[in-house]
Amino acid sequence: MGEQKKMVEAITSMEEDFAKWYTDIVKKAELIDYSSVRGCMILRPYGYAIWENLQKILDAKFKETGHENVYLPMFIPESLLQKEKDHVEGFAPEVAWVTYGGGEKLNERWCVRPTSETLFCEHYAHIINSYRDLPKLYNQWCSVVRWEKTTRPFLRTLEFLWQEGHTMHETEEEAWAETERMLGVYADVCKDSLAIPVVKGRKTEKEKFAGGVATYTIEAMMHDGKALQSGTSHYFGQGFAKAFGIQFTGRDNTLQYPHQTSWGVTTRLIGAIIMTHGDDNGLVLPPAIAPIQVAIIPIAQHKEGVLEKARALADRLKPNFRVKLDDSDNSPGWKFAEYEMKGVPLRLEIGPKDIEQNQCVLVRRDTREKVIVPLSELETKIPEMLAELHKSIYEKALKNRENRTFTAHNMEELKKLADENSGFFKTMWCGDEACENRVKEEVGLSSRCMPFEQEHLGDTCVCCGRKAEKMIYWGRAY
Amino acid sequence: MGEQKKMVEAITSMEEDFAKWYTDIVKKAELIDYSSVRGCMILRPYGYAIWENLQKILDAKFKETGHENVYLPMFIPESLLQKEKDHVEGFAPEVAWVTYGGGEKLNERWCVRPTSETLFCEHYAHIINSYRDLPKLYNQWCSVVRWEKTTRPFLRTLEFLWQEGHTMHETEEEAWAETERMLGVYADVCKDSLAIPVVKGRKTEKEKFAGGVATYTIEAMMHDGKALQSGTSHYFGQGFAKAFGIQFTGRDNTLQYPHQTSWGVTTRLIGAIIMTHGDDNGLVLPPAIAPIQVAIIPIAQHKEGVLEKARALADRLKPNFRVKLDDSDNSPGWKFAEYEMKGVPLRLEIGPKDIEQNQCVLVRRDTREKVIVPLSELETKIPEMLAELHKSIYEKALKNRENRTFTAHNMEELKKLADENSGFFKTMWCGDEACENRVKEEVGLSSRCMPFEQEHLGDTCVCCGRKAEKMIYWGRAY
Repeated sequence: MGEQKKMVEAITSMEEDFAKWYTDIVKKAELIDYSSVRGCMILRPYGYAIWENLQKILDAKFKETGHENVYLPMFIPESLLQKEKDHVEGFAPEVAWVTYGGGEKLNERWCVRPTSETLFCEHYAHIINSYRDLPKLYNQWCSVVRWEKTTRPFLRTLEFLWQEGHTMHETEEEAWAETERMLGVYADVCKDSLAIPVVKGRKTEKEKFAGGVATYTIEAMMHDGKALQSGTSHYFGQGFAKAFGIQFTGRDNTLQYPHQTSWGVTTRLIGAIIMTHGDDNGLVLPPAIAPIQVAIIPIAQHKEGVLEKARALADRLKPNFRVKLDDSDNSPGWKFAEYEMKGVPLRLEIGPKDIEQNQCVLVRRDTREKVIVPLSELETKIPEMLAELHKSIYEKALKNRENRTFTAHNMEELKKLADENSGFFKTMWCGDEACENRVKEEVGLSSRCMPFEQEHLGDTCVCCGRKAEKMIYWGRAY
Repeated sequence: MGEQKKMVEAITSMEEDFAKWYTDIVKKAELIDYSSVRGCMILRPYGYAIWENLQKILDAKFKETGHENVYLPMFIPESLLQKEKDHVEGFAPEVAWVTYGGGEKLNERWCVRPTSETLFCEHYAHIINSYRDLPKLYNQWCSVVRWEKTTRPFLRTLEFLWQEGHTMHETEEEAWAETERMLGVYADVCKDSLAIPVVKGRKTEKEKFAGGVATYTIEAMMHDGKALQSGTSHYFGQGFAKAFGIQFTGRDNTLQYPHQTSWGVTTRLIGAIIMTHGDDNGLVLPPAIAPIQVAIIPIAQHKEGVLEKARALADRLKPNFRVKLDDSDNSPGWKFAEYEMKGVPLRLEIGPKDIEQNQCVLVRRDTREKVIVPLSELETKIPEMLAELHKSIYEKALKNRENRTFTAHNMEELKKLADENSGFFKTMWCGDEACENRVKEEVGLSSRCMPFEQEHLGDTCVCCGRKAEKMIYWGRAY
């Protein structure tokens, strides 16, 4: 009853307060609950089911591309974490330390993994001996901990769920290709399963992964124009391999260091879904990951034959779609609001009149467009409407990004644009970190990425006016 | 090359040294690797794939029985852990404590979850208000930490993977039924998917879960006669609900405490598979969870047409079975040994002569029985042989248990039997913990369970000779 009451209250409107709208949705769509564990969230069944669906899609893609799953310990002894200098500098400030175990003080502190490069490297040193052992294409599904001061559900939490790919290759070329391939997998899943358009690009030296050579990223734009880094893929070169003594006998019989990559996406993608597609009625879920794809709502369900028909329909559709029949005592209007809040892509209404005419009403979540459909055509009409919804919310998101992407040629222009707008700002950049820092300090924008699809916007750096060959995206980020 | 060398060495024989045989297998079948994280193991691709297959089977059963997956934080603040007195006494001595995070000392220590009752209860207090909110049937897949001093791969590790079901019910009756139902699910999965016979029963007060009312268990017998507790299901009564203030408005409009259960199985089941079915040639895997069900080994693969035929066969069988074609340069004999070590249920040999006669050779892992099978009959013959293997290893395990189950009527008899044998020892028991302790101290046996299927072995307690109504199993346990 308490839950029901909360549901019926309207959520804050997006335009009024986007941040509050977001936190309203995560609670009212029953994605999460808070607990007494600061900065951590409880993924409730509906929120976790989204993650499970996304996991299934990603895991299948990883396996198709030859990757194998493994599980490594959740702890990293301090001495192991310290083996790669840049890596420990990047992560040590934000780890959680275990200092007592089994009632005794530990001789050496163990951190809870913030990421598992060091553990993978130690393992790879054991199992890689020859070029015949390469490539090693491993992935791990787990949770990691980064001690964040300020947290927001899905976007930045002290503990989060993710997958981390860690691969070892015989040649530099192969490792670069893997780095790019896995970024491509992420971008495709965002587009094809989450209906989220992303910009693929490379992070600046300043923003790259601690200990890596290069970081590739997919950057998405949220409804409010802010950027969300949605997945990263790193090329590590041989740095970790050297630090951890991983060597193999090559085809020419010489000892060589392998070339390494890592790549990951997290529960943050659920935040991306919410802020890309949601509206003032709640979530809008892409069909591929929606825990319920079709909510069946009986109309006048007390009348003879209605519930029976609704149940028969549910049974008929279940082999092909994720269906929920709501035969609770709540009113149809109540149910409409509930499944809109939960972002269910299609609502199927069926009442006495419909039954008479062998039809039902299908309503799309995004447009609320109602279509009368003969019952005999449901198996073709439902996938059609699900596909249309997917396409339509993708295009809407793409349009939002296009409308909010601006070009600047100098600092004055950039400042003015950034003052007046929220979005992506394209400029040329000389590559100097000093300019990157100035844009951050003076305009409040961070570099998002140097996109793979470069455009020639001019010849000079937006900041210093010197010669510039790289086009870069700036933005305010979550 | 290094890996290959290790593989070719024979493992220690079971009869010579069972413990060493076990650790040889987990390494040489490439199930695990050790790391510098004491007491934790690395689950390698082959070991993790077994867990994934088992997870899929269990998860489907949990969902069929109406359970939903959730994810709760991995940390428990000390004050939360302490809310239920017996529970904290049971678990506090073996937890890992996080005392520093983000470079600062914490005001309150957080333990890494050893189990999540306290977190689930805190959450349930938020979301349970009315009888309409019940039952809540939640499950969580995660890893937990218990600071064990002595560890062995799969059987007892400092961190392990598991699932923990946590459910809340309106009535005591429903909660008891759930406790029994989930134990039944475990027993069925052990029998039908792992080919492991188990004894279902109830733990004594001494051995029950800290904070619970009753613990049900499934006890399996390993090849060496020792017992392995393989899964537990607990009835909690209202103890946690009262400690955490979880109340709901009942049908009669009064405030009531719900009745609670929890249940779990772990990666320990992989240890059970190894020690139930393995032999001196390595693992023997039940087909339902074997990462590879059929290993295809080309014979004289350099000869024209052999590899092509083997590949065509692999492609043909892949939609229905988990198949691996090994077309590496290793000799057939080498490959035979490798897939025997890895416990692959069926080996399919195909050479020039077979191809001429449109046939192949199928070899069962357990009996090494060779059958010549026309290629046209593979789709029926393979499932048949897999089913036979499953049945046969189940019966072998059951026979081992029967042969190693002994009945004793008094301490003298029990001591003699336990001195001369390793196995289960059935006796009558008065129910007094003093007798349970004496059996432990004087005979070195722990109580395994009071089986649901009771037998009347006599009228008096094996220990004190007083009237006894309960039949109990004793054993030495992993």
